[in-house]
Amino acid sequence: MIIVMKKGATTREIANVTARVEQLGRQVHLSEGEERAIIGVVGDGRPLDREQIGRMSGVEEIVPILRPFKLASRDFRPQDTLVRLDGFSAGDAGVVVIAGPCAVEDRVQLLETAHAVKEAGAKVLRGGAFKPRTSPYSFQGMGLEGLKLLAEARQETGLLVITEVMSPERVPLVSTYADILQIGARNMQNYALLHAAGESQKPVLLKRGMMSTMEELLMSAEYILSHGNDRLLLCERGIRTFEHYTRNTLDINAVPMLKQLTHLPVFVDPSHGTGKWDLVGPVARAAIAAGADGVMIEVHPDPENAMSDGAQSLKPERFAQLMIELRAVAEAVGRTL
Amino acid sequence: MIIVMKKGATTREIANVTARVEQLGRQVHLSEGEERAIIGVVGDGRPLDREQIGRMSGVEEIVPILRPFKLASRDFRPQDTLVRLDGFSAGDAGVVVIAGPCAVEDRVQLLETAHAVKEAGAKVLRGGAFKPRTSPYSFQGMGLEGLKLLAEARQETGLLVITEVMSPERVPLVSTYADILQIGARNMQNYALLHAAGESQKPVLLKRGMMSTMEELLMSAEYILSHGNDRLLLCERGIRTFEHYTRNTLDINAVPMLKQLTHLPVFVDPSHGTGKWDLVGPVARAAIAAGADGVMIEVHPDPENAMSDGAQSLKPERFAQLMIELRAVAEAVGRTL
Amino acid sequence: MIIVMKKGATTREIANVTARVEQLGRQVHLSEGEERAIIGVVGDGRPLDREQIGRMSGVEEIVPILRPFKLASRDFRPQDTLVRLDGFSAGDAGVVVIAGPCAVEDRVQLLETAHAVKEAGAKVLRGGAFKPRTSPYSFQGMGLEGLKLLAEARQETGLLVITEVMSPERVPLVSTYADILQIGARNMQNYALLHAAGESQKPVLLKRGMMSTMEELLMSAEYILSHGNDRLLLCERGIRTFEHYTRNTLDINAVPMLKQLTHLPVFVDPSHGTGKWDLVGPVARAAIAAGADGVMIEVHPDPENAMSDGAQSLKPERFAQLMIELRAVAEAVGRTL
Amino acid sequence: MIIVMKKGATTREIANVTARVEQLGRQVHLSEGEERAIIGVVGDGRPLDREQIGRMSGVEEIVPILRPFKLASRDFRPQDTLVRLDGFSAGDAGVVVIAGPCAVEDRVQLLETAHAVKEAGAKVLRGGAFKPRTSPYSFQGMGLEGLKLLAEARQETGLLVITEVMSPERVPLVSTYADILQIGARNMQNYALLHAAGESQKPVLLKRGMMSTMEELLMSAEYILSHGNDRLLLCERGIRTFEHYTRNTLDINAVPMLKQLTHLPVFVDPSHGTGKWDLVGPVARAAIAAGADGVMIEVHPDPENAMSDGAQSLKPERFAQLMIELRAVAEAVGRTL
Repeated sequence: MIIVMKKGATTREIANVTARVEQLGRQVHLSEGEERAIIGVVGDGRPLDREQIGRMSGVEEIVPILRPFKLASRDFRPQDTLVRLDGFSAGDAGVVVIAGPCAVEDRVQLLETAHAVKEAGAKVLRGGAFKPRTSPYSFQGMGLEGLKLLAEARQETGLLVITEVMSPERVPLVSTYADILQIGARNMQNYALLHAAGESQKPVLLKRGMMSTMEELLMSAEYILSHGNDRLLLCERGIRTFEHYTRNTLDINAVPMLKQLTHLPVFVDPSHGTGKWDLVGPVARAAIAAGADGVMIEVHPDPENAMSDGAQSLKPERFAQLMIELRAVAEAVGRTL
Repeated sequence: MIIVMKKGATTREIANVTARVEQLGRQVHLSEGEERAIIGVVGDGRPLDREQIGRMSGVEEIVPILRPFKLASRDFRPQDTLVRLDGFSAGDAGVVVIAGPCAVEDRVQLLETAHAVKEAGAKVLRGGAFKPRTSPYSFQGMGLEGLKLLAEARQETGLLVITEVMSPERVPLVSTYADILQIGARNMQNYALLHAAGESQKPVLLKRGMMSTMEELLMSAEYILSHGNDRLLLCERGIRTFEHYTRNTLDINAVPMLKQLTHLPVFVDPSHGTGKWDLVGPVARAAIAAGADGVMIEVHPDPENAMSDGAQSLKPERFAQLMIELRAVAEAVGRTL
Repeated sequence: MIIVMKKGATTREIANVTARVEQLGRQVHLSEGEERAIIGVVGDGRPLDREQIGRMSGVEEIVPILRPFKLASRDFRPQDTLVRLDGFSAGDAGVVVIAGPCAVEDRVQLLETAHAVKEAGAKVLRGGAFKPRTSPYSFQGMGLEGLKLLAEARQETGLLVITEVMSPERVPLVSTYADILQIGARNMQNYALLHAAGESQKPVLLKRGMMSTMEELLMSAEYILSHGNDRLLLCERGIRTFEHYTRNTLDINAVPMLKQLTHLPVFVDPSHGTGKWDLVGPVARAAIAAGADGVMIEVHPDPENAMSDGAQSLKPERFAQLMIELRAVAEAVGRTL
Repeated sequence: MIIVMKKGATTREIANVTARVEQLGRQVHLSEGEERAIIGVVGDGRPLDREQIGRMSGVEEIVPILRPFKLASRDFRPQDTLVRLDGFSAGDAGVVVIAGPCAVEDRVQLLETAHAVKEAGAKVLRGGAFKPRTSPYSFQGMGLEGLKLLAEARQETGLLVITEVMSPERVPLVSTYADILQIGARNMQNYALLHAAGESQKPVLLKRGMMSTMEELLMSAEYILSHGNDRLLLCERGIRTFEHYTRNTLDINAVPMLKQLTHLPVFVDPSHGTGKWDLVGPVARAAIAAGADGVMIEVHPDPENAMSDGAQSLKPERFAQLMIELRAVAEAVGRTL
């Protein structure tokens, strides 16, 4: 951390600041320039609270140097983390495809989709049983019944199952049915939920909030990792910008940037990231070309009648075609699928 | 809702769409222009799901006409809602000032602040007992102990007490100590929490998410109102933009815009909205000049040593001075304080 | 400037960086912590180019300390700059109101508006002769004819005249008719135009780009000031965000923030900042309460038939009413109007 | 265009609006629902000005149906436009690579880079002679001397040359030296410049503004196309968002979205789109996987000493390696390079 003093800060102000820093157990390197003094704070441990010192008399600005996340950082663990799932891992050379409907709607819809995506090469089935909806008047998911259908689909197809959990007290229930817990974008900073997911020791896919920086995503990852649960997948799913021709703006930069910052696998959700089914294919290809460890794609046998996200869902035959395209791109960048 | 068909949509496609709409219990007005057909959907009730129809063959775009919120809208209730509190109301001519520390830290800090803000004219004491923090390594609040101190401060000063509740299972506990439940920006779309707050029948202050639209704020309000709980205050607290000289960008437009859209009282939090104590005063004055029904201001007796948000907290003497300024502005716009 | 070296940067890399900095005429303060080395760059003069050094081997990050603007900063000139106009100044206790139509459309429209705003208390008449339009098919302004009508309106009413100039070669022409040159939001980084406006020695009102930070606004101001032209007014006019209920998001924080950063007068344009005539009044009041030195308001005698910006223009009688409100707020914050 | 009337609009208000629309030469389809009336505007020609009607009494909202651009749209020209350059075209199966330094700095730097990128497979050499810089104190480019060096590099290598033009009066000069005129992000709405570039009949590469929507990009394209100049390339180069780990957020969605909306070739600039040289490779691969017709990459023989944009420039050997990767991805998606 670097403390920039105001132009004209007094000797006494500078002394007060250095005394405070030392009292907090750090060492100080003072550089007094012609225009202003700069105080470098040295010493290990967690970053000091910027605000405490930032408010002291004579201080102009506090500049953090270290990233505020630790367990999630490459500095902490230089090698890629491989998240072992059932007979395969996320984070190695194989690109993992998660596919399925936005919401579980009924037995036929789910099983039909599950068989189709399995055959096309997906490894994990997605499907929402509890749905976060902007409107209280929209379909809120099938709940427990949906979880049971997911378990049945796993039984029938051998696919792993991922589904969203929306509140801490539901973590035990969802954990008994799902192989991977999904924490949705709106809950990325629901800290009670992050704690519960960390404690569960189940694999977790954590989606970046639509309004969250990469740094905040990694800070939320820290909540889960701090419980010793490192079977954690991060997922870029589009951020909110001023552009309105697409539902969100998929942040493709985040793929290589996150791979630099963290050892955790990075997934991409082009369905939410674009909001339009006819953009899903090109953007899924882009994600893999940029180095994503997996993609998550919405597939529905009858998108026109889907109860949610129909506009961004692929039909099974289009998905099968896309898998062929994705495999070609994966191989072009030295991966498999 | 208006359905815009693609240029060149076939008669059959148009017929399919109109049939679907009628099947959903609405009437159809078809306009066939030279370039394309436009289908107006008429009939009361809740809006149809855009996605369902948007995905049908031949449809180019769905244009919603009605606002998706109902109970929160001025159309539904044209008169201002007065939220009765203890001997006074929010939403009438009197501007309500909420003040206090970001977090409850100890008995002395809280009581000293409570007495000071009471004397300066505040009606409600704020103070966080459970704190949502980006980092798992930051101070997370005093918890139950903090709630008890808030209750003691109320006892001593007669101020009402507002504090944040972060998860649905804590609503009963927090409700026994607080007069007003605060739902924070990060939880604006934590639907389980919104339901629990709605059921509690306690007054609620709902903060706009830092990257949520006004429409989404009103949709979240709808979750609370749909439980018959209309003692609801909305609070603008700054949105996230590209500007980085300030912590957030306070959306001053939201004050008069929300007052047009909804009958609920609108508050402003200039402390989070700016992130800098020396901007709080001018922006608080602006909020009242723009028509806000109340402001929420962070006050701390020793901001340099505050455990959170010190950079944006006012000292009690500065707050007392600000109250004089706010009163002058309130009177200039025909309000009292 | 502070140079943060990577964890594990070699002695040689550190030496290379310090040598480069010294070669550029600055001094170096080296702090070697346990985790990484930090190099403080001391010495006066213009900031070094971040990129040059940021790219050197072993460097993790460059942190600028000094603001990149100089002539525009309060450090450079602590007192408020008063921009003398004709018998009055901007930047003193008197709040200056600029009003008039978005575009000059014809003689009757302009003169009628000019008389009305003069009578209500405005000091400056606005009116576009050259109009920047998103679409090549929209009305592009009356050009020279419009300039002549503006000059006639000045003659008749005694109001000063402000109008937009859109390209450097038009600066001399516009300068012969207008008292104040306006540089619009889309041209805030049109550097050739900034140079020409600086050279002209006419008063300039520089609008913040809808996509520009305050820092960039002040850097653009620097272009004008560097020609010795300090009769410069800055104008906040709303920035682009994700919110879509309003045309732009007026950045009210920018008013007190800019007043801290710079000695130049700060104006606010609530017409473009909101895009809706019924929000203009509340937001204009807010601007003055926040400390703005002036406001710029669109007024049109027949907004329904305006050739541009009708949706955000006030009728003259509504404007006269607003002036009364603005005066009350100005007095409440110790200003006059 | 659809006109939504307010709830409770009077018969007279509805009649006034329909009369106005008919007077403007359009036909009207009136749908009177239980809650409100909706007026569909039918008839060909350019869109009516929303504001004119939006301001009429009783009107709640205007909903545009047609895209406001015409010549740039796929509706107008369904086939891909091939922009013929010298012996090759942009917009066909071959992906075009533009490479070179941000700024022309001296003869050796430019020629060395030109030979290197030619050998690696680039078809066009980039290099700035006139540089738009945020700060008046930064290097502003070599000007005419730079143009001459570019012409020399073309002579020596056979590469085409692209360089930025910043003001309308410079278009003739730059046109005599360059094969393609570049209009930079900051000038995307410099309408005088767009007109001049349109008139020049030279090929133009138009960059999307960093906070401009795709719609605005296509409207600016319309300015150029309306002069009969359709040798036009669009270029996505990153937009401004709240994320700060990268300089900009490259909008990968824009590639397939623009390809749907327009017949013009779409390029991507991953150097500005990321701001970090080590992200350029992955994002360039992503661009091609998403369907871009070309990429524009900054290459510098000595990025540490580059006068601008060193942080995002590749060394020639890294660029040569990247070309191999890009070729593999291009082939995986059925293109060549």
